[in-house]
This record gives sequence, C-alpha cells and structure tokens, in this order.
Amino acid sequence: MKSLTKLGLAAALIALPSLGLAQEADVTPPNAEIGYIFTTFMFLVTGFLVMFMGAGFSMLEAGLVRQKNVTMQLMKNVALFAFAAIMYYLIGYNLMYPGDGWSIDGILGAFSPAVLEPVGLADTETDLTYASVGSDFFFQLMFCATTASIVSGTLAERIKLWPFLIFVIILTALIYPIQASWKWGGGFLDAAGFQDFAGSTVVHSVGGWAALMGALILGPRIGKYKDGKVHPFPGSNLTLATLGTFILWLGWFGFNGGSQLYMDTAGNVADISRIFANTNTAAAGGAIAALILTQLLYKKADITMVLNGSLAGLVSITAEPLMPSLGAATLIGAVGGVLVVFAVPFLDKLKIDDVVGAIPVHLVCGIWGTLAVPLTNPGASFGTQLYSIIVVGLFVSIVSAVVWFILKAIMGLRVSEEVEINGLDMAELGMEAYPEFSKT
Amino acid sequence: MKSLTKLGLAAALIALPSLGLAQEADVTPPNAEIGYIFTTFMFLVTGFLVMFMGAGFSMLEAGLVRQKNVTMQLMKNVALFAFAAIMYYLIGYNLMYPGDGWSIDGILGAFSPAVLEPVGLADTETDLTYASVGSDFFFQLMFCATTASIVSGTLAERIKLWPFLIFVIILTALIYPIQASWKWGGGFLDAAGFQDFAGSTVVHSVGGWAALMGALILGPRIGKYKDGKVHPFPGSNLTLATLGTFILWLGWFGFNGGSQLYMDTAGNVADISRIFANTNTAAAGGAIAALILTQLLYKKADITMVLNGSLAGLVSITAEPLMPSLGAATLIGAVGGVLVVFAVPFLDKLKIDDVVGAIPVHLVCGIWGTLAVPLTNPGASFGTQLYSIIVVGLFVSIVSAVVWFILKAIMGLRVSEEVEINGLDMAELGMEAYPEFSKT
Amino acid sequence: MKSLTKLGLAAALIALPSLGLAQEADVTPPNAEIGYIFTTFMFLVTGFLVMFMGAGFSMLEAGLVRQKNVTMQLMKNVALFAFAAIMYYLIGYNLMYPGDGWSIDGILGAFSPAVLEPVGLADTETDLTYASVGSDFFFQLMFCATTASIVSGTLAERIKLWPFLIFVIILTALIYPIQASWKWGGGFLDAAGFQDFAGSTVVHSVGGWAALMGALILGPRIGKYKDGKVHPFPGSNLTLATLGTFILWLGWFGFNGGSQLYMDTAGNVADISRIFANTNTAAAGGAIAALILTQLLYKKADITMVLNGSLAGLVSITAEPLMPSLGAATLIGAVGGVLVVFAVPFLDKLKIDDVVGAIPVHLVCGIWGTLAVPLTNPGASFGTQLYSIIVVGLFVSIVSAVVWFILKAIMGLRVSEEVEINGLDMAELGMEAYPEFSKT
Repeated sequence: MKSLTKLGLAAALIALPSLGLAQEADVTPPNAEIGYIFTTFMFLVTGFLVMFMGAGFSMLEAGLVRQKNVTMQLMKNVALFAFAAIMYYLIGYNLMYPGDGWSIDGILGAFSPAVLEPVGLADTETDLTYASVGSDFFFQLMFCATTASIVSGTLAERIKLWPFLIFVIILTALIYPIQASWKWGGGFLDAAGFQDFAGSTVVHSVGGWAALMGALILGPRIGKYKDGKVHPFPGSNLTLATLGTFILWLGWFGFNGGSQLYMDTAGNVADISRIFANTNTAAAGGAIAALILTQLLYKKADITMVLNGSLAGLVSITAEPLMPSLGAATLIGAVGGVLVVFAVPFLDKLKIDDVVGAIPVHLVCGIWGTLAVPLTNPGASFGTQLYSIIVVGLFVSIVSAVVWFILKAIMGLRVSEEVEINGLDMAELGMEAYPEFSKT
Repeated sequence: MKSLTKLGLAAALIALPSLGLAQEADVTPPNAEIGYIFTTFMFLVTGFLVMFMGAGFSMLEAGLVRQKNVTMQLMKNVALFAFAAIMYYLIGYNLMYPGDGWSIDGILGAFSPAVLEPVGLADTETDLTYASVGSDFFFQLMFCATTASIVSGTLAERIKLWPFLIFVIILTALIYPIQASWKWGGGFLDAAGFQDFAGSTVVHSVGGWAALMGALILGPRIGKYKDGKVHPFPGSNLTLATLGTFILWLGWFGFNGGSQLYMDTAGNVADISRIFANTNTAAAGGAIAALILTQLLYKKADITMVLNGSLAGLVSITAEPLMPSLGAATLIGAVGGVLVVFAVPFLDKLKIDDVVGAIPVHLVCGIWGTLAVPLTNPGASFGTQLYSIIVVGLFVSIVSAVVWFILKAIMGLRVSEEVEINGLDMAELGMEAYPEFSKT
Repeated sequence: MKSLTKLGLAAALIALPSLGLAQEADVTPPNAEIGYIFTTFMFLVTGFLVMFMGAGFSMLEAGLVRQKNVTMQLMKNVALFAFAAIMYYLIGYNLMYPGDGWSIDGILGAFSPAVLEPVGLADTETDLTYASVGSDFFFQLMFCATTASIVSGTLAERIKLWPFLIFVIILTALIYPIQASWKWGGGFLDAAGFQDFAGSTVVHSVGGWAALMGALILGPRIGKYKDGKVHPFPGSNLTLATLGTFILWLGWFGFNGGSQLYMDTAGNVADISRIFANTNTAAAGGAIAALILTQLLYKKADITMVLNGSLAGLVSITAEPLMPSLGAATLIGAVGGVLVVFAVPFLDKLKIDDVVGAIPVHLVCGIWGTLAVPLTNPGASFGTQLYSIIVVGLFVSIVSAVVWFILKAIMGLRVSEEVEINGLDMAELGMEAYPEFSKT
C-alpha cells in the first residue's frame, strides 16, 4: 500500500485543476467518476480475496496441528476474524488514519467508529479522486484481520481460547492500527521515506513479532524439546494444509494487487498486472527453493517446507511487488524460501516452539522483504528500511509482551498440562474435529 | 435485490432523455455503454461468488453429517446444483419475470427456456441501461440454486436420493421462481411495498420452509430422540464445516453486493461497498454473539454454533444490507446469532430433526432479517413485511408439503431402517467417502 | 481464446483511424483507455480464477488417490504449478507468441524471458487497444499450468517425483507453448481456420496426450489388473474430490470467459456473459448425464462419475463456449458426461491405468468438444478441426513419448515395487498426509 494520506492529498491536488476545468471540458467529469468506480470495484474484488485468506489460514493451521487440537484451532481462526472485523470498525480504522495527526485532539478524535458514506449518494457529493470509504474500509479491514491470523498458528496447541482472543482484540483495535498509521496513515515512518508497499513489515512482521513474544512467554509444547532433542509433531492433515496454502496464494493477489490503491488509469492497471505476475512468480520461487533445498539437505523433499516456502516467497515480495522484474521477483521469493528452510530448525534450536512456522514465514521473510526493497526500488534507502523495521519491531514486541504478561497474570495463558496432553478440543470445547475417525 | 422490473423501467425512463440527447452531447453514449460493462461484469463476479456457495454448502453439510452418509450428501449437493441450473434455464428464469403479468397469456408465455442475447451484438442493438441478459441470467440462477442447497442439509442422513432430486426439480423450476416473481418479478408483493433486498425471505426462508415441511413429513433420524432425550450426532469433519462456512461468508459478498443490480455510477458502487462492509460485520456479529452466548450458557464455546451464528448473521442482514450503519448491521447480525443458539434446541424440543441447523439459520433468521428492515429503512412497513413473510411462507409450505406427500406416496421418501443405520453411502451408492479411515 | 495475433492486428487496424481522430474528438482517447482498463482487469480476475484451479486439481487428485500416496500427490501439484510459473516466464511465453514467425531468427528470438511493461507507464506510452502485457502474461501462464496439472492425476501412485517434475519443465517450457503458438500465436493451425476458443485441444487434449503416453510407458499400478479383472482402488477422500471439482467448475468461468480476450465493449462483455452461462450449463449437463447413466447402468449413481461428468461437460464446451445456445451447450456437455462413463471402463479394458480419469475427461472430451465446434459455429470446418486434433495429438504424443523414454532410461520413471506397495509418501517423502488417522 502506498501512503494513503499523502497520495490522497497529491491526487486531490492534481485533480483540482481538472475538476475546475470540468465545466469546460465535457470529458473530464465522467472520467473521474469512471476512475472512482474502477478503483472502488477493484478494492471490493481484492478485498474479498484477502478476506478468503481467513479460510486459508484456518485450513493451513488446522492441517498442521494434531488432531486433538483441530477444533480449537478452527474456533480461534473464526473468532479472531470476527473480533478483528468488529474492533477495526469500532476503533482501528479511524485510529489508523488520524487526520489531525498525533496531537491530543487528533488522538481523541481518532477513537471513533468507522462511518461509511451515505446511501445512494449523488456522484457530485463525493470525492471522486479515490474510492468509496466503504470499499477502502472493507479492504483495510482484511489486512488487520490477516495480522491476527498470523499469531494464532504459532501459539496453537497450548494457549487458552479467551486470553488469545483478548490479545486479538487489543492487537486489532490498537497495536496494528497505531503502527500502521505511522506508514499508511501518513505518519513519521512514511515521512522518513519508509517503503512497504503491501506490508511485509506493517502486516507480516507485526503478526510475527506478536507471535514471537507469545511463544517466548508461553513456552514450548510439552514434549517438543526433550532430552536435548527436537521431537516433531506432524500435522494431522496435509491435504488441508495444502489447500490453505493455495487459498493464501490466491488471496495474496488481492493483498498485493489492491495495495496499488488506484485502478483509474492504464498506468495503474498495468502496475496491478505487474504486481499479480510478480506475486505469483515470487511464490513459485519460494516453493521451488524450498523443494530443491530440502531435497539436497535431507534427501527428501519436505511438503510442509514447500508450502511454507511459497508463503515465504509471498511475504518477501509484499514490501515491493511492483518494481522488480519477473526475474528479480523470483529471486526475492526464492531467498525467502531458503530463509524458511534454515529459520525453522534455528527456532527449534532456540527452543522457540512455533507450531506452523509462522515466525520464519511472516517475521523473518517480512524483514527480508523489507530490506530487499532498495535492491529494486531506488526510492528506498536501506537505512530507513532497517530503522523502520526496528521501530515497528520494538513497539509491537514491547506492547505485545506487556499485554501477554498482563493476560498471564490475570487469567493465565496456558491450559493445564493434563488438558494439553489430552488435547484442547475435548477439554476446552467438548468437541472433536473428527470424532468418528479412530486414532492410531 | 431491488425489484428488477420496476427499476428497469425507472432506469429506462430516466435514461430516455439522456439517450435522446446523445446526438448532441458526445459524452453520454460512452457512459451508457461503460455503465453497461460495469454492471454486467459486476454480475459475473458476484455471480461466480454465489456459485461458489454451492461448494460452501457441500463442505458444511458433508462436515456436519456422520461419516457413513458423507458421500450421499456430496452427491445431493452436486446434483441439486446441476438440476437447478437446467431447470432454471428451461422454466424458472422466464417464469420469474413474467413480462405480461399473470394473465393466462402471460403465464403460458412465461413457460419458455431462457434465451441470451446474440453473439457479438453491436453496442447499439442492446438496451444499455442495465446489464447483459447473460449476466443477469447467470446471477439469478445462482440464487435459485442456493434455495435448493438449503433444503439438502436439513433432510440429510435419511432421505433417498431421487425423491430429493425430484423435489429440487420442482422447487427450482416452479416454487422458487413463482414466489420470487411476486417480489423481484414486479408482482403483487413488490407492488405492496415489500422490501427484501437480497432475499432473506425470497431465498432463505423459502429454502427453510421447504426444508421444514420435509423434516416434518420425513420424521427425525433413528435414535435422535429416544427416551425423552436428545442424542446429538456429532458432525464427522468440523474442519470442512468451517471451510464451508468461510466459503459461504465469501460468497455472500456476491449474494448481497450483486443485488444492488447496478454498478454504473459512483453512487451505486459506493452502495455496493456499504453492502460488502455491512455483510461482513453482520457475519462477525452473529459469530461473536453465538460464541459468547454458548460460552455463558454451556461454559464451553460451541464451534458449530459459532459457524451457524456467522451464517445467521449473514441471513439476517440479507433483507436489508444497504441502509444500516455498520453498528446497526453488527447488531442485526448479532441478534441472528442469538436466535440460532436458542432455535436449535427449540427445534429439538419439537422433535424436528434438522441435521445441519438450516431451519434456525435460514428460516428463523430469514424471518428476523425481513422484519428488521423497517428498523433501518423508513420505506419499509412492518405490516407489509409480516404480510409478505406469511404469504410466501404459506405458499411454499403448502406446495412443498403437497409435493413431499405425493413423492412419499409414489416412491417413498425415506430409506429403510437398515440402510439408515448402516449409512446411506454403502447401501444407496456403494461407496464410502473415507474408505481407508477406520471408524471408532 | 481467439487468435491473439490476428485479433490484435485486426483491432489495431480498426483502432488506427479512431486513434488518428483522437486529437479531434474528445471522447475517443478516454474510451480506448477505459477499454484497456476493463480488459486488463478482466484478465486479472479470470486469471486468478484459473490460478485457483491449481487448488482444484490438488484436491481432486488428493481425494482420488489412496491415503498412502496423498502427500506425494500434493507435492507434485504444488511443485508443478511453481515450475510451470517459472518455465513459462523464462521460455514459454515468448515462444508462444513468436512475433517474427518460425524463421531461425524468429525461433532464436523467441527464446527469451517474458518482460512486462515498465512501472507507472504513462497512458500514452502503451497500446491501448488490448490489455497490459502483465495481465496477458498472468492469464496465459495459468493455462500453461493447467496443462501440467492434467498429467499429474493420471500418473499418480507410481511415478517418482523428479522425473515427473522434469517432464513438467519440458512440457511447460516447450511442448505446450510450441503447439499453442500454432493456434493462439497465429501459427499455421490458426491460418488453416482451426477453432479452439479456450483450449479443448490446445490445453486439455495436450495434457491428455502427455498423460496417455506417460500411462502407457509407466504401466498400470500393481494389482490394478489382476487375473483378468479390474480391481478398483477407491479414492481416500471423496469430500475433497468434490471440493476440487467445485473449485475447477468455478475456475472454468475464468478459463472460458477470459478467453474472449476483450471486455472493452458492450458486445464483448455480453459475449463473456454468454460464455459464463454456457460454461455453467455444460457442466450441469455433464453431471446429470453421468448421474442418470450410472444410475441406469449400475443401479447406483456414482459420485466419482458425476464429478468427472461435470468436468467432462466443462472440457467439452471449452472449444466453443460462445456460439451455442444454452440448450446446445447443455447437450454438448451432456455428451461429454456420457463419453466419460464409457471411456473410463474402456481404458481399463485396454489396461491403461488412469488414476483420476484425466484421459477420459481431458483427452476424450477435449476431442469431442473440438469436433463439436462446427455444430454451432458455421465458421469452423469439421475437416480442419479433425486435422488440427491429429496434428497436435501427434506432436504432443511423439515428443512426450520421447521425453518419457529418455527419462526412463536416465533415471527411471517408476518407484520400486516395495515403495509402491507401501505408498510413496513414507518411502519418498518420509511423511504421511494423515498420520494420526488409523487405517483399516
């Protein structure tokens, strides 16, 4: 996503003269309205693609946890999406675009629910240089929900339902929107020249940092690291994990493509096309890198690494899906795939237990993608990218850690040992995901 | 959906002067054609989203029945979609829009297959004020198929394949289109001022009434109500039920959004955006209401209630997804979620056996959503809404009951006791959905 | 797909005068740009639908193989999609559209990676008569990937991972693009008047021929044909097979609809609408034909035949989804459904072991669909259709057979007997798809 405020302003400034000329040249006003329809519809289409990523995360995570925890993972994913929708409406959306800046008035003013344009508005009543508020809200909301989806995978199989959901509420109402405002709301990181097109840092690393803090505070699953060894817990359903990955891959066209923010000109739609093509090839690069690397390292190609490799490619290209050539995009994605193959065992060495590999995918590759922007975008500086990663990382990590600690103190984060061993599904929810399939 | 005939007329009347001016002002004709392309493409996109709801219902229902009946449930869902497509083409589409009204000539004239516009038509040959017939047919067809999908879930695990499919044929060829014509074909309910934007009554309650009649005539599954107790039969695959719910949630953006029927102006596309945002927040409201309520009532959050809660929210907002604010939409959805949590055990008390909860979701919330329209739309009257619900309900219930009774008399509706106990899959289809997974 | 080169030329010729007039009439240039945006966005939307068919094939195939080979099937499907993306970018795309024809210079010139338009191009810098290169590349790439997806199903449960992937690389880099250039690149089959709108021959039969050659060279699975009898190996997960079919059905709207190649006029968008409606009804016709036929022949409706019947209907209408009426499209699809029901046992009689029925669906119905074009399109000749089927068939079969034989000689195609019996998942990948579900 480009910086909305700045671009909106710029677009408004550019548009002003032509709007002024509208009464003279017959052709200008319909064009503005047509551009508005194009961009708005583009947000709706790309927005529903990103919404479907909620299904993708659900299937990926349900496929990668053990059978006894599948229902809980489904519950968390549906509930987090619903809570994100409500919280972003109530608080997050306006907080992310604080029109009056970060003065006291601006901050207080930002704490207000989102309001869409009136029904059946006349074409002259609205600013036709961008898109409808409704479509922008819908699109932005899905990014906020994605951030929360990232956290649930890492902390699976041991965190209680409600502390997790309360964290999601705080993440989607406050943590995500505040830091997103620094870039996409036209805040200080944007002013500093930070480049993060669709959110390698603003979305993916944020989810990753929050997940990392949770994993550190929560500790690993029982039996994962025992006698100095790593004991893998294979996912219960690789078919659904694969389906989830395909859905995420599909949704990412909306994620990155919609972040162009405008589809009102030939230039903009051509840019969106580049983004679609680059996004696809980066995912392919990440998948193939992980495929070849695991074949060479372990003599056996590893499907979970290939799936995470494609997601790694997607996260890596998210900070700059427009400027790279197809070749560069493939390589950026491939580096992401390589990083994941090494980051997964590295986390295990640190005894950080990340059930689905969300930290390698979203945090490690989110950082890599953000740092890679200057390689293809001359407008980005390595220093500013690094500075912004650190600022966002510190903010999210510290606030997340505080919230996790408070939740731990008040209500406890983790299920009892007995519940964890028997599975969260029966103990916490009284239900099994596959009640008729007997277990080995 | 707005009333097509009326709006089409209104649009034509409004458009006439500008079309008359076309030879003078250069800008008008391209606008009409551009509006036509926008609206037509919008129907194709929203239509394929609604089509995908067929997959959503399939996964939801396959996930909520027991393993021994999964293949049959899949078969019914694929076959009902295919039959709906053919019957709506052969009879339903023209029956739903009886141009000449309900005179004898009009009715006979309506019994004709759908015909699309000629290939490669010139832009001057077609009415550019709406959309292509092909896109309208495609979109409307998917609504008809949805109505049939609702029925299959309720009657699962005991109804024979062919009587069910014959009912679907009658439902999609006659029952659905006739009552839909009363509102969307510009019939007497539309004239009376009935408001049902995307079909809380016209689609969802219709499926619900047909299912309810079927459930009453068919009776409950063996063992469901025994010794004065309700014996729950847990669904065999909650992951797929969750996937199905996400797919339905996704498809609903098309369902409600496309029912705006026009995307040719900034005002219309802004309205569609409102609808997308409201649809999403209503689903979230329904899910959260069911989550919190089951947590409070049963001390355990219930995933199937949360899934049905989100669907309840979606059905509830379908009668009026445009006028509510985001807050009102959330509340309308949340009430739907609450209704489902109480309606499911209430049906069980009445010994009405609804396998997937389709009657609570589609009938109860369909009624609620329709009655809620006057809360946000001053153009709707509570009395007319209630009157229309009753008219449609009586018509569908009586005709459905007659059809079910005739089918019962001629060929029997229900499989034998032995087949029901052993499962429909092996007995009726000779195939298991999961042949290699051993059962508990 | 219409022939791109010819149409592009024709469009350019038609557009030239109006472009020349652009400086005089204010209305022309925005129209050209608007048409460009419409067509480009249409390619992106239809392209992502076709991309999602990768998930459809994965689920269909994972559902139809036995549990012990599911992970391998998932791996092949993800990897083939990724390799297709890279190879089509590196070689295939330019090879498919050899601007300078098949001279030595043209051929050498064609061996170059795809290059998209520059970022942020001005609207005057690009040819506005078609669509962006990026969107065209994205859309065309998905067709190439589909071709590869067809092969994986037939050869499942016995082919090694890497020989298969190397074949995919050759198929997507060379075999597919070369023969596709003969029609869609404006080559000699196009010049001869061959009609293949969206690729019954160019995509589906090509995948089918390659699969057939592989099946012949690879031989049947152990135990499939024993003691003169056919031993069916039931698919392990019919729910996912059904989901896969629904996803393919959905994706086909993009496959056929996008092949109209233009959405810049009312006539074009009306044609795309026809295509959507015809595609849907052909699938329905195929499904119902297979349903009724298996009910009559075997007294039990067969879900895998119904699923393949709908896919057969889709393949059958792909050569000409525009010209048929809804009735004709339904019949063309229904014939496809009938063909599949007979072709599956016929292949078994020949002891050609096609795990998922891809040869009946994609090859047999691809031929049928191509031969059926003259029935509804007066511009097509039966002779030219037959000639083109034979030319493409011979080319693909011979080259595929040579490649398969070379791979067999160098590295062996088939896993060892022991690995095949125990399943490819544990032996080749060291992982099970459903590790916790005990087996019968």
